[in-house]
Amino acid sequence: MRFTVLTLFPEQVRNFVEASITGRALARDIFALDTVQIRDFCDNAYNKVDDTLYGGGTGMLMMCEPVYQAWNSVISQAKERPHTVFLSPQGAVFTQKKAQELLEYRHLVFLCGHYEGIDRRVLDEIVDEEISIGDYVLTGGEIAACTVIDAVARMIPGVLPSSSAYEEESHMGAGLEAPQYTHPEIWHDMRVPSVLTSGHHANIREWKRLMSIYETWRKRPDLLANLEVSESDWITLLAWRAADADKNEPDTKDSD
Amino acid sequence: MRFTVLTLFPEQVRNFVEASITGRALARDIFALDTVQIRDFCDNAYNKVDDTLYGGGTGMLMMCEPVYQAWNSVISQAKERPHTVFLSPQGAVFTQKKAQELLEYRHLVFLCGHYEGIDRRVLDEIVDEEISIGDYVLTGGEIAACTVIDAVARMIPGVLPSSSAYEEESHMGAGLEAPQYTHPEIWHDMRVPSVLTSGHHANIREWKRLMSIYETWRKRPDLLANLEVSESDWITLLAWRAADADKNEPDTKDSD
Repeated sequence: MRFTVLTLFPEQVRNFVEASITGRALARDIFALDTVQIRDFCDNAYNKVDDTLYGGGTGMLMMCEPVYQAWNSVISQAKERPHTVFLSPQGAVFTQKKAQELLEYRHLVFLCGHYEGIDRRVLDEIVDEEISIGDYVLTGGEIAACTVIDAVARMIPGVLPSSSAYEEESHMGAGLEAPQYTHPEIWHDMRVPSVLTSGHHANIREWKRLMSIYETWRKRPDLLANLEVSESDWITLLAWRAADADKNEPDTKDSD
Repeated sequence: MRFTVLTLFPEQVRNFVEASITGRALARDIFALDTVQIRDFCDNAYNKVDDTLYGGGTGMLMMCEPVYQAWNSVISQAKERPHTVFLSPQGAVFTQKKAQELLEYRHLVFLCGHYEGIDRRVLDEIVDEEISIGDYVLTGGEIAACTVIDAVARMIPGVLPSSSAYEEESHMGAGLEAPQYTHPEIWHDMRVPSVLTSGHHANIREWKRLMSIYETWRKRPDLLANLEVSESDWITLLAWRAADADKNEPDTKDSD
């Protein structure tokens, strides 16, 4: 799989993807990353990529031609036409499902905007899909491109240490993950839940399932509709909530 | 304003924030960035920060003590207690509104997880707020921390070239931005909408307002409820949609 990023800040993208987990996979050629400096495709003497907005407004807009030529330099050399993604706050919101869809492409081209954005005409001409990583505004598309690359790349076999490592995680299923614990068994007077040290696999599985529902209910009730919750599950969950509420109350009760 | 990032990959965070727009602001001391290497706070001879999970499961979990000591090294030197944010897919989903809330803190500490995550007990002890940048899974919290820092930092006065530059943008109001155009007036046979070259300010403002609603309707209908749309607005919008539908149809009609 190949990722090509069209950007005014190629170093920012390279430095990021070349670090950490994705960097190790890049070094082993598990996927490929190219960056293209849009400024190299200016057709004017001043290396000018941006200009003022028609109709007024603060800031500068990236012009059609350098963006188009940068994109064309990639397309003209590609054997099959890559899928071109524009990162912008106007796009469809990125999700794990979308990450899995993007994993199907052999070559993804990411276009990163800067300044006030990019002239709409070149977007209409070259962009296959507009993606937003969330409902917030960033200084440029680079961080969004890195985010999408990271989310997609980690699912390429061989990128994560164990190929099964991502299967149990939040948003892979529909709910949040159960809390997790490692050594030591007691830390700052807090003990690992006894079920996890019991060695009883069926009980552990059931606790994780219920805790996953509980966490989802507490933190992301909007995702709860995706989960199967039985009547007896609810009885347990309500008891847990009551116990948690007791814990957080001031000391008006005897502790047990 | 100060951002401190607790991470196993401090270079990744520094390289990112030091590039581009935020880097220029850092160089001018408009905000401050510290990174703390969690591995420096191991209490074992092997610099081991992670261990296997209680109750089984793939992957490794970051242990309480190195995370706690890294955090404590920051807290013990801070004059007032900073606000500690843990980046995780379990958190509340980050939005522009949340970015504005975080802007109120003078010192934000970001904790980045890696491997399978972090032992829940240390999170319970030190974290004030858990934030997710979106419903997708990443290799680590670093990119999420960079995203939140970018979204918050760009609103600090002096970071963007013009202090008014971010006011008109998507998600600052409730809808998406109108399409934008710069020179040349004709590119690849596509002409800038004539209203934008008319010099008639009231018409331009009205076109931008309607186009913002139109874009929101087309791309993010879930945000439409936030906008005021009159009956006569709808008549215009429906006419635009009909015209767009005609354009995208095969050539069965005479063109006008």
